[in-house]
Amino acid sequence: MEDKYDFGLIGLGVMGRNFILNVADNGFTSFGNDLDEEKVNALKKEGGDLAKVNATSDVKTFVAGLSTPRKIMMLVPAGKIVDAVIEGVLPYLDEGDILIDGGNSFFTDTDRREAYLREKGIHFFGAGVSGGAKGARLGPSIMPGGSKEGYAPVQPIFEAVAAKYEGEPCVAYLGPKSAGNYVKMVHNGIEYGLMQLTSEIYDVLKKGGDFNNDELHATFAQWNAGRLQSFLVEITSEIFEKEDDLGEGRLVDQILDKAKQKGTGKWTSQNAMDLGIPVPSIDIAVSMREISALKDERIHADALYDRPTVETMDKAQLEKMAEEALYFSFIVTYAQGLHQLADASREYGYDLDIATIAKIWRAGCIIRAGLLADITQAFKADTELPNLLLSPTFVKKIQSTVAAARELVAYAAKNGIPVPGLSNSLTYFDAYTTTRLPLNLIQAQRDYFGSHTYERLDREGIFHTEWEV
Amino acid sequence: MEDKYDFGLIGLGVMGRNFILNVADNGFTSFGNDLDEEKVNALKKEGGDLAKVNATSDVKTFVAGLSTPRKIMMLVPAGKIVDAVIEGVLPYLDEGDILIDGGNSFFTDTDRREAYLREKGIHFFGAGVSGGAKGARLGPSIMPGGSKEGYAPVQPIFEAVAAKYEGEPCVAYLGPKSAGNYVKMVHNGIEYGLMQLTSEIYDVLKKGGDFNNDELHATFAQWNAGRLQSFLVEITSEIFEKEDDLGEGRLVDQILDKAKQKGTGKWTSQNAMDLGIPVPSIDIAVSMREISALKDERIHADALYDRPTVETMDKAQLEKMAEEALYFSFIVTYAQGLHQLADASREYGYDLDIATIAKIWRAGCIIRAGLLADITQAFKADTELPNLLLSPTFVKKIQSTVAAARELVAYAAKNGIPVPGLSNSLTYFDAYTTTRLPLNLIQAQRDYFGSHTYERLDREGIFHTEWEV
Repeated sequence: MEDKYDFGLIGLGVMGRNFILNVADNGFTSFGNDLDEEKVNALKKEGGDLAKVNATSDVKTFVAGLSTPRKIMMLVPAGKIVDAVIEGVLPYLDEGDILIDGGNSFFTDTDRREAYLREKGIHFFGAGVSGGAKGARLGPSIMPGGSKEGYAPVQPIFEAVAAKYEGEPCVAYLGPKSAGNYVKMVHNGIEYGLMQLTSEIYDVLKKGGDFNNDELHATFAQWNAGRLQSFLVEITSEIFEKEDDLGEGRLVDQILDKAKQKGTGKWTSQNAMDLGIPVPSIDIAVSMREISALKDERIHADALYDRPTVETMDKAQLEKMAEEALYFSFIVTYAQGLHQLADASREYGYDLDIATIAKIWRAGCIIRAGLLADITQAFKADTELPNLLLSPTFVKKIQSTVAAARELVAYAAKNGIPVPGLSNSLTYFDAYTTTRLPLNLIQAQRDYFGSHTYERLDREGIFHTEWEV
Repeated sequence: MEDKYDFGLIGLGVMGRNFILNVADNGFTSFGNDLDEEKVNALKKEGGDLAKVNATSDVKTFVAGLSTPRKIMMLVPAGKIVDAVIEGVLPYLDEGDILIDGGNSFFTDTDRREAYLREKGIHFFGAGVSGGAKGARLGPSIMPGGSKEGYAPVQPIFEAVAAKYEGEPCVAYLGPKSAGNYVKMVHNGIEYGLMQLTSEIYDVLKKGGDFNNDELHATFAQWNAGRLQSFLVEITSEIFEKEDDLGEGRLVDQILDKAKQKGTGKWTSQNAMDLGIPVPSIDIAVSMREISALKDERIHADALYDRPTVETMDKAQLEKMAEEALYFSFIVTYAQGLHQLADASREYGYDLDIATIAKIWRAGCIIRAGLLADITQAFKADTELPNLLLSPTFVKKIQSTVAAARELVAYAAKNGIPVPGLSNSLTYFDAYTTTRLPLNLIQAQRDYFGSHTYERLDREGIFHTEWEV
């Protein structure tokens, strides 16, 4: 038993290699597996001491080399590959072994696999890992869900490798079945929303205030030193500084404006619709990636229409307005994603603790932000909080910034600068905080043409009217 | 053979009863079937002459009473009931018989059923029927898709019962498999969008111009006499007139502002995301129904936040602005839905002709509108038109109204009136007509944290950069 490895990892791509080296750095011996001999050899070389980090392309050797209960993580692309890897390793596993899917698997796939493996006595986890390649190497945020019993042997390893926020590891057992994958999916949905918002603010500063890349860099850097402190604002500031190795000027100006997607944002929106939870700041981020992909149509359309001449604004005034509007919209976007998580928890029986989720997002992951410390507090103070916008702390933050969001959306609408993320955040806020919406008219219309009935304000019951005169 | 009926209908609810009476009015004898004896007897009584309209609760008798090839339409709720009805009737059918699902079945269900029945020699159609109870009785828009060969025997009946637009029937064979259900689904998605837009305009007129119900009635009636002529604008004008039988004043003011949904709008949005086609004016209509349902949270939230005092506007000025903004947004919403249809046609092999679809929407259906005659022309003039916004006729319509949409969205944003449908229509337009969007930043961010690579404006290829300083 002495020479068995503590932790196994299948899939030695960038993420896998970095994760396994992170495990080894934290005092756990680890064993990698990949079909690709080159990747196996690269890890052996990079790991240095084979007693600490080793690798093999042979699954049987790999499994035999692990201490029991075996703790095996897969970092392979989501989809059928995960099933193939499971089938490949399964014949060699024993009851009580632990298998962890660290990829962005769709949550219903994880439910299916968890049930299948539970029958065979294997503990299966879907554990979203966020933080990119660097996070995997130096400390990601890890979102495990699955059998609670099976989590204990993995816990010390995950806690050692995870990012730390004021000493607390950014990992926690989140709930049964696909809870971990679901939370990671919504994390990514929020990420889509925040990225769209930063891109809109970039556009507004550039078009409305003639900010050059140095000024954009300085602005985002300064914001990152304040209440907007976050990984995305930080890297945005750095992006504007990057010189273009293949040409003159800054790289950002040569990047094609077609944004790709890998599906987790779309899944978040689609599933929110199944739950009936509104997440328009995420939906619109998905739509904008789609519109961005229609580059040829956009070029064609642009030539057909006159645009308003942008009325430029004073730089300092615009910067202040933009900072407040971005802060406001970040909060509203987190609020929507967390609202979805609370509802999904009830629907799928995850029993999620939102404060714990916010807590493990404070460091390591892509949406880490100073705001998450406040969000953690808000959900600790009221574990049943239905929506972040109802938290007294956040009421204050919103009240002090919503005026700027109004100004910015109005300015952009008049000047033809598309800010759909900012405007959806504002209209979501305005609708969510309105006692009487005009959707009584929609109910009247539905009853008029489809006899779909309606309820009344003044009495209980279901009513139908013959509307036609 | 003499005494056999021309047309059979299963499901004698309001829609089914009205449809069968419509068939009989148009000279085709018809036979109804429902498990519920009461419904059977009601139809017999209402039909008058049993030689023309008859009904039975016995499936065998029903099928035996139809002339061959049998033409049987089901008007039953979507879902498992459709499968149960199919299994119930199947044993009595002969090869070459025609079975039509007139409900809002999800398109993949229709594909499955069509393939299943094709193997058995039965022609299966998914045929969306729009127009509500009144449309079913007096002339709906019918959207059939399925086996082209099987359509011929049904064609004269459908053309007789369908609504007419300048003498042309609002029905046409649309394409194979689930083409008909898919088109109806997107029809309903557009319907969601238009309804949301009218409700927002109602809110703006009321809050921003103190319009009372009489003025709202007059405004919408006047609009309906102009370029906004449409079923939804027409019934909206009538709704504001309706007195409340159970209380004082107008009924619309007593209707609870929680809008329900039956799923077709949601399906449209979710499927558009699968296709990668942006339909934000539809997405937000789905979100707003969801937000409307959160009435308790909205009441709670409303009490926590100050709202801006609405700066009222001159009635005439507001009315003009609202008409232009609504016209603009209606066009953009149709554009999105039709864009989705064009893409779905390629993806699912429907081979849809968009001009034909617009043509059969000109009368009978819920989204019928004067605009659809222009839309039909636009797609006749250019059958490959990727998006309505690229049609020269529509460029003019948009150019003359977009300024008002800008004003209205800006006004609403400043005054705290949520107009997410109007603002999503505007931002969609602004994004779709912009050659360079700021999503180059999103690609830079994705490459920074996830090595997702990017393309460049100045040269071909896929690039990755080590961004960190």
